[in-house]
Amino acid sequence: MSSEFEIIDQYFKKKMKQTLLGVGDDAAIIHIKKNREIVISSDMLVENVHFLKNTNPAHLGWKSLAVNLSDIAAMGAIPKWATLSISLPKINHGWLKEFSKGFFKCADQFGIDLIGGDTTKGPLTISITIMGEVKKNKSLLRSGAKINDDIWVTGQLGMASMGLASLQGKLKLAPSLKVKCINALETPSPKVLIGSHLSRYANSCIDISDGLIQDLSHILKASTVGASLLLNKIPCDQFIHTSKKYQFALNGGDDYELLFTASKKHRLSIEKIAKKTNTAISVIGVITQNKTLKIMDQKGKSISFNKKGFDHFA
Amino acid sequence: MSSEFEIIDQYFKKKMKQTLLGVGDDAAIIHIKKNREIVISSDMLVENVHFLKNTNPAHLGWKSLAVNLSDIAAMGAIPKWATLSISLPKINHGWLKEFSKGFFKCADQFGIDLIGGDTTKGPLTISITIMGEVKKNKSLLRSGAKINDDIWVTGQLGMASMGLASLQGKLKLAPSLKVKCINALETPSPKVLIGSHLSRYANSCIDISDGLIQDLSHILKASTVGASLLLNKIPCDQFIHTSKKYQFALNGGDDYELLFTASKKHRLSIEKIAKKTNTAISVIGVITQNKTLKIMDQKGKSISFNKKGFDHFA
Repeated sequence: MSSEFEIIDQYFKKKMKQTLLGVGDDAAIIHIKKNREIVISSDMLVENVHFLKNTNPAHLGWKSLAVNLSDIAAMGAIPKWATLSISLPKINHGWLKEFSKGFFKCADQFGIDLIGGDTTKGPLTISITIMGEVKKNKSLLRSGAKINDDIWVTGQLGMASMGLASLQGKLKLAPSLKVKCINALETPSPKVLIGSHLSRYANSCIDISDGLIQDLSHILKASTVGASLLLNKIPCDQFIHTSKKYQFALNGGDDYELLFTASKKHRLSIEKIAKKTNTAISVIGVITQNKTLKIMDQKGKSISFNKKGFDHFA
Repeated sequence: MSSEFEIIDQYFKKKMKQTLLGVGDDAAIIHIKKNREIVISSDMLVENVHFLKNTNPAHLGWKSLAVNLSDIAAMGAIPKWATLSISLPKINHGWLKEFSKGFFKCADQFGIDLIGGDTTKGPLTISITIMGEVKKNKSLLRSGAKINDDIWVTGQLGMASMGLASLQGKLKLAPSLKVKCINALETPSPKVLIGSHLSRYANSCIDISDGLIQDLSHILKASTVGASLLLNKIPCDQFIHTSKKYQFALNGGDDYELLFTASKKHRLSIEKIAKKTNTAISVIGVITQNKTLKIMDQKGKSISFNKKGFDHFA
């Protein structure tokens, strides 16, 4: 039988790249550059709540880290260090091998050191804390949106929630679209590259993990402004536009795209950054003075929509 | 029905004392002083593994943070920031009120800002990441023990494991001792005050969370040295000495005392620090050259003992 220490040695101990001391003492040690601040975020994923039983463990390892990277990207920071705490019903070496492979594939792609954590017995639960660096006073907050700012989003919205609905048998998709949607659900690509460049131009930023409407509403509330969106500008698969299943793009969770606002004068600069970082971006609306959120159809008519995002306790 | 955001606002949002941005954005922001390093540690507590069902929630809130503070103290650092991720089967306001009360009682006592985290539905699991500051190159590691160092421990060992055995009906204790042991189990006092002063004198340090033998063994392995302990010098309740139930002091987990090693020349300085911080401390043995651990009884005879500590997967 492996002990907790053997599991950590076997699966979670790697050479550190930017850390003074990693896994193996009471705590890890990091050194921070001058004039830098640290941003810190934590997320917890629970079996049957955030992921289905029998989810591919390598995909789960990737996603556990990716969803946290998305929060750091949304602060305009560069993610660097993560801790991973995991409770497992029993030691399953096949599962641990695949999970840690997926986790480190994501860690290596984005330059993250795993610097600590905990393993214990219990229902399958994964808890990650991620830390990143940002230049002093350069973080992107939810509270910075200004009236007349463009509202931008990266990528395509609604893909992950269509993937989930499809796996649950609630939505029928063409095979190629289904694969794309399940990939978006299980192995999302956090927008880390563009995130750290945006701090020069954006006034506010958030990641879309609870759905476009809910996450935009956080920005509006924190910035005490409103917004007007154009339905046909929302970047989503043709299937959503033609079937009018906009609830996936508007309220679906798990997208891990960035939503940010910026002055219109920065449009060209932002497009250049998007090109340089190979990131699809779209302007979907504008920040307004009155504190409401409106969505307009092609005829300029305000449509009604569900204001709530996903809530595990609802 | 409360949403995740309402729970966070109601129970876990407090005014920050040493944090640029706390709970409420994608991530928190902290600023680090010049020539300081950050130490980081994570722990996960699972119902029925780390604590019994129906544990007093205020005690659980206290302990969840206290066990993490102990890891930072063992690095010789000053704990400052924590994130808390918690999964709950359902929203129970009475439980949350008590849990957060206990958590913040500990946070306030030790000057910790709760800067972020996550709440979700799931089996009761508490995951905390804690961060502290230490002067550059002044952390206390497991690997620094030197031959002829005194081996010191704080407090009394075996109390928490006697408390657990008593609650489980495996051990009969006199009522006053039982109360003391259950307090040690449920509301441990992390040795934060003495910890940050020790970095001037100690060569190595660890917290005794998995039992004296196992945690001392980590120091011996990391420092490639051995140790000789004197059984009657191990600080534990008279009950253990008279009943000879030394397994509680040697192998019992959950003590959260500090074990550290230091040159004999620092004895007086260390005793002064202990007095100043009102911490009980004892020399229990010496670091030796040969890489084994020996425990001697009063007649100088080597006794046999169980080398393993507590392992959730064993």
